Amino acid sequence: MTDDIQINDGGTLRHLLTLENLSGELVSEILDRAQNFLSIGDRKTKKLPLLRGRSVFNLFFENSTRTRTTFEIAAKRLSADVVNLNIATSSQSKGESLLDMIDNLVAMQADMFVVRHAQSDAANMIARHVPKGIHIINAGAGSHSHPTQGLLDAFTIRHFKKDFTGLKIVIIGDILHSRVARSQIHVLKALGVHEIRVVGPETLVPESLSEMGVSVYNDVDSAIKGADVVTTLRLQNERMEVSLVPSVQQFHKDYGLTKERLALAHPEAIVLHPGPINRGVEIASEVADGPQAVILRQVTFGIAVRMAVMSLLQD
Amino acid sequence: MTDDIQINDGGTLRHLLTLENLSGELVSEILDRAQNFLSIGDRKTKKLPLLRGRSVFNLFFENSTRTRTTFEIAAKRLSADVVNLNIATSSQSKGESLLDMIDNLVAMQADMFVVRHAQSDAANMIARHVPKGIHIINAGAGSHSHPTQGLLDAFTIRHFKKDFTGLKIVIIGDILHSRVARSQIHVLKALGVHEIRVVGPETLVPESLSEMGVSVYNDVDSAIKGADVVTTLRLQNERMEVSLVPSVQQFHKDYGLTKERLALAHPEAIVLHPGPINRGVEIASEVADGPQAVILRQVTFGIAVRMAVMSLLQD
Amino acid sequence: MTDDIQINDGGTLRHLLTLENLSGELVSEILDRAQNFLSIGDRKTKKLPLLRGRSVFNLFFENSTRTRTTFEIAAKRLSADVVNLNIATSSQSKGESLLDMIDNLVAMQADMFVVRHAQSDAANMIARHVPKGIHIINAGAGSHSHPTQGLLDAFTIRHFKKDFTGLKIVIIGDILHSRVARSQIHVLKALGVHEIRVVGPETLVPESLSEMGVSVYNDVDSAIKGADVVTTLRLQNERMEVSLVPSVQQFHKDYGLTKERLALAHPEAIVLHPGPINRGVEIASEVADGPQAVILRQVTFGIAVRMAVMSLLQD
Repeated sequence: MTDDIQINDGGTLRHLLTLENLSGELVSEILDRAQNFLSIGDRKTKKLPLLRGRSVFNLFFENSTRTRTTFEIAAKRLSADVVNLNIATSSQSKGESLLDMIDNLVAMQADMFVVRHAQSDAANMIARHVPKGIHIINAGAGSHSHPTQGLLDAFTIRHFKKDFTGLKIVIIGDILHSRVARSQIHVLKALGVHEIRVVGPETLVPESLSEMGVSVYNDVDSAIKGADVVTTLRLQNERMEVSLVPSVQQFHKDYGLTKERLALAHPEAIVLHPGPINRGVEIASEVADGPQAVILRQVTFGIAVRMAVMSLLQD
Repeated sequence: MTDDIQINDGGTLRHLLTLENLSGELVSEILDRAQNFLSIGDRKTKKLPLLRGRSVFNLFFENSTRTRTTFEIAAKRLSADVVNLNIATSSQSKGESLLDMIDNLVAMQADMFVVRHAQSDAANMIARHVPKGIHIINAGAGSHSHPTQGLLDAFTIRHFKKDFTGLKIVIIGDILHSRVARSQIHVLKALGVHEIRVVGPETLVPESLSEMGVSVYNDVDSAIKGADVVTTLRLQNERMEVSLVPSVQQFHKDYGLTKERLALAHPEAIVLHPGPINRGVEIASEVADGPQAVILRQVTFGIAVRMAVMSLLQD
Repeated sequence: MTDDIQINDGGTLRHLLTLENLSGELVSEILDRAQNFLSIGDRKTKKLPLLRGRSVFNLFFENSTRTRTTFEIAAKRLSADVVNLNIATSSQSKGESLLDMIDNLVAMQADMFVVRHAQSDAANMIARHVPKGIHIINAGAGSHSHPTQGLLDAFTIRHFKKDFTGLKIVIIGDILHSRVARSQIHVLKALGVHEIRVVGPETLVPESLSEMGVSVYNDVDSAIKGADVVTTLRLQNERMEVSLVPSVQQFHKDYGLTKERLALAHPEAIVLHPGPINRGVEIASEVADGPQAVILRQVTFGIAVRMAVMSLLQD
């Protein structure tokens, strides 16, 4: 599963494909740079010339306006030229293979590809294929990984909790199919978090997940108890989970993050969610809108994190 | 119906939501600024740095390439970064609420939202919701309002007629369902026009419209007689009007602006139309292409007016 | 068939509509300028200020992400503001005529239209219609012409072969319906190539093509023999050709460019293809990926050629 293609010989980051096996040092370097970029967003002139004249291609094989927009904004704030490619309407439909298509975009002197694809290895395959000087960012791959989401989760936790040592972190929901959960687990382990608890319906949180180094809980209240960080995952109605849970109402009753449940966590616990939220399903509105939720701060941090990654990638 | 949310305490414009109750002074300030911007469009380098580094989001919940394009051009000529969001394909489809979506875009440090929505109060709702520093422009809301269209109509009339005092203005067509008509009426009244006549099929121009301070005519020839400005409205085949008029041919016979009818107006009368025109329906081709039509000038003025509004909004 | 609308009185290029009757001098001027731009693409900051503040509209009435992207990149590298119009979703659907639509975009102070349309005369019609100061580039028109493709083919051939005199050039496939073939033939003749051979199924390569000044071959091996340049055309499954050839397999057997066939050409022959390639149909994978194929170089050259054309057009 290890994949060193994203690391240059000198130890710097060439691509961002996965957080698996990414060192805590590299993660911290990204987060530190994102910290520097954070203030840019508050200025009237939200521009840095770091990627001026570079061509960034958003290759979204899966529709995700929200994620695509965050990358588009991040690239434009770095002064890059951004080309959005809606692959459904492109020559994919003419039977062109993925790598032939990439070859063509490389020949147009692309500098960076932001790739969202249902297949977990699409971004890796592209990264292995492109010549030096071209950088790949995985913007979400199937249920496997979503590294910039993991990084922004880590940034958010560091922002509010300062230190990762000794944190108790719980993730609630469909851990099995969630690229968000996987990426968060990888980055938190790299940053030295020892206690990561996962909980959800047995079909979605099997015992085998403990191989990832997390504690699998059956009971949501026990899992939340004393937690410093609570991540609730989106119940993806549009994916397969619906058939794996009895009903949306039952899911909320069993696993929804209510005010009562959150009260079991540490009094200063923060609540994360990758968005968009399903109010009254995985999270109660009063929690989503409450003082402990940092869900919208995650979005802001996400722009800074993506700017950091885009500007760090190098040969 | 009054809504002061668009005016700051100091009397400046924070949002542009409606022309209802907008003072003649503020309208004139916008038109004066648009006048200054008009020459920019004739230059080879059509750029001003006024919104450099700002993030403008075009949120079009209704498809309107034409209007979206004018805002996109206006924003780019002010050096803003523009993100176009096609809401049909965005997370609206994942059941995200409008305000949750707005919160997310605000968290991405948006500076301005240009909103087109079928519901008349969508832009207002967003304006009430967003924090200070973020500005909303209503780019057309249901049949209720289309303020930048009203402003560009006013700009056009001022350009050709200099003075609003004593003007006779007639609007022909489906006044009841037209955001263009409503916005034009509001702005003209703010600018001191006393004689605004409306005429069209009885179902679309009921007597009750006289509450808006306009004169309701039954006979199109009497309405046009001596008018200085003739606005014909698009018969919106794609909306409901078709079932409210006997037939397109009959509509043209009864209300279409022909050369003969236009001859009843003041010899120097100008003809306005919001576009796109239906040739041979609400307007005869020889009128649309004739010397009195200023329909394409309206388009040019519209860019300058939108640049003026975008650059004037402030806290 | 001659159309001088694209040439100014002074002999400079106002529009690029067709390569028919374009002089070798003008073609060489474009290729020379493209040569100067080629190195821009290798820089980190791929930007020139030549079209800064100009508004370029991509009007694609036919879907072609690949071609649209190359024009978008070319325009952005020249610092223009680019507006992409998806015409299917625009007011065309409201019954607006093409020229009314163009009038509106002209009124928005467009500087350049890049037009892709199924009808061969659409770009010409627009060029005849627009006022001075506005420039039209034909980005592909039906089966008639695709001038920037022809120019990039010529650029590619000049790059590898230096001199056009004495070259033997063969084009294989559906010559009859190919805008690529027509444009390549026009430009090569302007540049003084004497021996252009065409070969393909009889239904697609009728004898009457010899009126274009090319040699019509019946036998593919004889046609390839000794050629310096071999252009294979895409078998357009999505167009009509499929019904005009017995089967894809048979087409490959009869006309596919295999390693064996290519061995009949000059040992230093180069292989061109407009892309996207159908591997195993008009071209064997080992040829497409082999040392003689310059297909991806064509893509790179295509950006430089489009930048050259965009920056050369003038009144």
